[in-house]
Amino acid sequence: MSEKNSNVIDITDRSGISTEPLAGSDKCYVIGSQDDIRVPFRKISLTDTPNRDDSLPGEPNAPIYIYDTSGIYTDQNETIDVEKGLPAIRSPWLDARDDTEELAEYSSEFTREQEAKMLDIPLFQHNRRPRRAKAGKNVSQMYYARQGTITPEMEYIAIRENVGRSEADKEGSLPQGFDTHITPEFVRKEVAEGRAIIPANINHPEAEPMIIGRNFLVKINANIGNSATTSSIEEEVEKMVWSIRWGGDTVMDLSTGKHIHQTREWIIRNSPVPIGTVPLYQALEKVNGVPEDLNWEVFRDTLIEQAEQGVDYFTIHAGVRLAHIPLTVERTTGIVSRGGSIMAAWCLAHHQESFLYTHFEEMCEIMKAYDISFSLGDGLRPGCQADANDEAQFAELITLGELTKIAWKHDVQVMIEGPGHVGMHKIKENMDMQLKHCHEAPFYTLGPLVTDIAPGYDHITSGIGAAMIGWFGTAMLCYVTPKEHLGLPNKDDVKVGIITYKLAAHAADLAKEHPGADIRDNAISKARFEFRWEDQFNLGLDPDTARQYHDETLPKPSAKVAHFCSMCGPKFCSMKISHDVRAAFAEKSKEFKEGGSKIYNKV
Amino acid sequence: MSEKNSNVIDITDRSGISTEPLAGSDKCYVIGSQDDIRVPFRKISLTDTPNRDDSLPGEPNAPIYIYDTSGIYTDQNETIDVEKGLPAIRSPWLDARDDTEELAEYSSEFTREQEAKMLDIPLFQHNRRPRRAKAGKNVSQMYYARQGTITPEMEYIAIRENVGRSEADKEGSLPQGFDTHITPEFVRKEVAEGRAIIPANINHPEAEPMIIGRNFLVKINANIGNSATTSSIEEEVEKMVWSIRWGGDTVMDLSTGKHIHQTREWIIRNSPVPIGTVPLYQALEKVNGVPEDLNWEVFRDTLIEQAEQGVDYFTIHAGVRLAHIPLTVERTTGIVSRGGSIMAAWCLAHHQESFLYTHFEEMCEIMKAYDISFSLGDGLRPGCQADANDEAQFAELITLGELTKIAWKHDVQVMIEGPGHVGMHKIKENMDMQLKHCHEAPFYTLGPLVTDIAPGYDHITSGIGAAMIGWFGTAMLCYVTPKEHLGLPNKDDVKVGIITYKLAAHAADLAKEHPGADIRDNAISKARFEFRWEDQFNLGLDPDTARQYHDETLPKPSAKVAHFCSMCGPKFCSMKISHDVRAAFAEKSKEFKEGGSKIYNKV
Repeated sequence: MSEKNSNVIDITDRSGISTEPLAGSDKCYVIGSQDDIRVPFRKISLTDTPNRDDSLPGEPNAPIYIYDTSGIYTDQNETIDVEKGLPAIRSPWLDARDDTEELAEYSSEFTREQEAKMLDIPLFQHNRRPRRAKAGKNVSQMYYARQGTITPEMEYIAIRENVGRSEADKEGSLPQGFDTHITPEFVRKEVAEGRAIIPANINHPEAEPMIIGRNFLVKINANIGNSATTSSIEEEVEKMVWSIRWGGDTVMDLSTGKHIHQTREWIIRNSPVPIGTVPLYQALEKVNGVPEDLNWEVFRDTLIEQAEQGVDYFTIHAGVRLAHIPLTVERTTGIVSRGGSIMAAWCLAHHQESFLYTHFEEMCEIMKAYDISFSLGDGLRPGCQADANDEAQFAELITLGELTKIAWKHDVQVMIEGPGHVGMHKIKENMDMQLKHCHEAPFYTLGPLVTDIAPGYDHITSGIGAAMIGWFGTAMLCYVTPKEHLGLPNKDDVKVGIITYKLAAHAADLAKEHPGADIRDNAISKARFEFRWEDQFNLGLDPDTARQYHDETLPKPSAKVAHFCSMCGPKFCSMKISHDVRAAFAEKSKEFKEGGSKIYNKV
Repeated sequence: MSEKNSNVIDITDRSGISTEPLAGSDKCYVIGSQDDIRVPFRKISLTDTPNRDDSLPGEPNAPIYIYDTSGIYTDQNETIDVEKGLPAIRSPWLDARDDTEELAEYSSEFTREQEAKMLDIPLFQHNRRPRRAKAGKNVSQMYYARQGTITPEMEYIAIRENVGRSEADKEGSLPQGFDTHITPEFVRKEVAEGRAIIPANINHPEAEPMIIGRNFLVKINANIGNSATTSSIEEEVEKMVWSIRWGGDTVMDLSTGKHIHQTREWIIRNSPVPIGTVPLYQALEKVNGVPEDLNWEVFRDTLIEQAEQGVDYFTIHAGVRLAHIPLTVERTTGIVSRGGSIMAAWCLAHHQESFLYTHFEEMCEIMKAYDISFSLGDGLRPGCQADANDEAQFAELITLGELTKIAWKHDVQVMIEGPGHVGMHKIKENMDMQLKHCHEAPFYTLGPLVTDIAPGYDHITSGIGAAMIGWFGTAMLCYVTPKEHLGLPNKDDVKVGIITYKLAAHAADLAKEHPGADIRDNAISKARFEFRWEDQFNLGLDPDTARQYHDETLPKPSAKVAHFCSMCGPKFCSMKISHDVRAAFAEKSKEFKEGGSKIYNKV
């Protein structure tokens, strides 16, 4: 690059935005029925299994294909330019459907004001105009699904959820009789029946389609927020890039403060994953932080503002009804959801039913014009063990179920948010109640935390609950960082939170016996048994940390090919002895084959 | 202290051994029916609940009493002298039973040789001689229990397991109708019936009695090993002290190398918790690391050597039988237990049944003469998801059940070790099989790890499985550190491993609805809701880390009394708004009391 722009990432420079490939991995793509259905995977190449006789060649191990959330940031053939944003891969699909139109100007008053202002933080320079459904059209994936249409998004997802199965099949690393039920038609059917959602705002054509539903891989969400002092656009974009690098399937932008509109724009334009928000936070900013000053008009304009920016799902706390508030009064920790407490304050101040509840159908009209999914917020989730599964929580859940039916009447996609703090013995009831009352709409939970006594370790207390509820059927797990309850997460905390949730989601996939979920476990275990240290690191969720830990004990490069484990040393290495046992047994078996010895029979 | 000895810890100096009290905590003791039954607790004092009207006084909160594993190291009234060891609190009880005798010399040949040698590491200077049961006597707690005798150890445990309930009762912080079923008689009965063990070697009179059984609090074990280059005795003792400081209920000394006899002695003399070992490791050292050179005689002498040092429980891999070996040949990761692989190598080399199996009754004779508990090792535990719950694993489990019956015939206490790597959906079967085949002997598991793909995070993958299996009935959880599979844990890793397992064990207690388990959760949640930050830190499992995380975001002392949370700031603090909602509701309720409004009724 001869001309150097500060926001263009020189991939040879690699500063600002994380664009290094993941250890041992290459980006590859599987092409669908159209050339522009180009589904990304991470290909992890493996070393050979060494032969016990060093003079003989090893046996090759087929590469492993991993579901890849990291976008083109980890593609060494791409140049990243934050100022231009990502390529709008979905635009041709939207054009082809011919049911949307480009608007001459933004529909939100607030947006138009912002566009006119000089601000501390630059506006993203668009070359596109906002898009909206043509009058009378419904552009939601649910609408198409119910019409029997398989969209390119659905086909993309089917390929993606198969986790490179077809590639793996070519390489011969697929187990025999492998289940490949995730077809485009299966995706369509799950969306049509409301069991899964595809969060894909028509104004976020940069997003790589993904699905949230319990018959697919369990997903995770990472939350980000703007810094108190925004130092640069890159810094804000990097938070999102960092989150998806480690496996965030969606990102919620929970920024507050005066630059949220601009910050959000930069994030969306550069995000290959769906972006979620809580519009209430921004609406509250617009009324100077006074809950009782909120009203439907300011909220509505905020929805439209964010809709035309491209937010893919909105958390809406419409289940906090006036009548539910008394149920929270005797609680140990009251209302712990920000949105929930804001709406409760509003209801009480006006002594009126929540405007989110009374204007719900109007919201549906907006949602279907942009294909935004509802994430119906659990404003009354329990904030401690003592409040788990109480009347307030379940009363709200039942309301969320009613609202789900209303949204579905409009073919608007819905997922339901869930708790919170819930002991292990009370988790299953949450899932059962949600499935029953919310008609199998996907569940999206925050943990739950299985004990309250470990501040500083709540990524773990919640990871336990998350793994379990994922197994029981939760479709997406919202991560929790070690700083939960204590402070704002830094970059390391975000990574630890994401890896913890990736392992919880994967444990859930394994427990559900999701087809192919164990391919990676089996590959890493084989590598472990064969002392292929580099493969072990690269197949793990966090190769860098694994390598660093190994190096602390055995820093020499020779240890990476050593035939013993770094914990026990050569004399006490069970795996080394186990190989000797296996060889010895092979000898003994030959010896006794003819003698008919019964000694090896099971006692 | 005028005379300064390098191994005497000056509590004003606090170097070498961790003797600082835990944050916000005081040591206190509850006295039993004899003055020398003096059961330690940690008392966490709490601040007052502030009044909404600042001019009015706050409401006091009763202190919380916590089960305390840390010994006198955290008692500011005690002086620690590593060279003298801890006070032998159980000696009067042993004397009073009058069924043991002091020996003129050590029974183990190896010990006598060591005593005569000049070594790099000094020998602990005993003022006691080894103790053994008088001829024909059985000195196990199980024997006493079955005779109907309640020992001081049992009474101590009953008080301890009540977690200061009587103290809490006096302070008024016990819930109404609190269950106090853990009586000395209940302890006796559980031990008599084999459902619980009290690991308490008569040569470890320094140990504070504790119990492992599924009707008691779930316990955790921490493993320690000697450094490659032992720099000082204090350093080795400190590893144990560090482990119990954060909540290790027992410690396994897995040291290897030439100083293990001496190192173990220093650890036991200074340990208030039971010490476990794997005698096979030392026996293998004695035959220069060649498994096939092992024999019953060298193993027997090792058992006696360690018995007279005071090891409280022995891991014995007697369930790895010759006939089981073929079942492991097709496994993905073979045999991953060190003890298991050593015994498999021995069986194959000699083509004979394991000498641990054939000499099991002789071992029982030794165990009952010192009251050592069996921890029957799971030599064939699965090392990966693919091998979980396989034929090899369950064949061994059935053998362990047979051995349990034999041990019980001798009134020898038994617990059973368990896996390993097991997906969530396969965990319950492990517990069910163990209860059935091992006749409800306590289960002691390593995790299990619920996925194989997260090296560097296996404290978490295993913490998930540990919490679940603890809920299902496992009595003790063996910790796993972040370095598992990768390297040797440092001090920070040990702490993270212990805290992770404490939270898993506690989550299990909560899920089992163990009486009183939620007292601490409720106290911390109340503190959280009332913005009592210091109480929140002090009530947590790791106050130091919680405080440090909070300070990263809000370092000023004023933030510790701020009425908002450090994550959201004052404007978006749900808990702050929730308090306002509560106050507003109280007003509204008054307003509508007379009007008969139905608006707050449940919809």
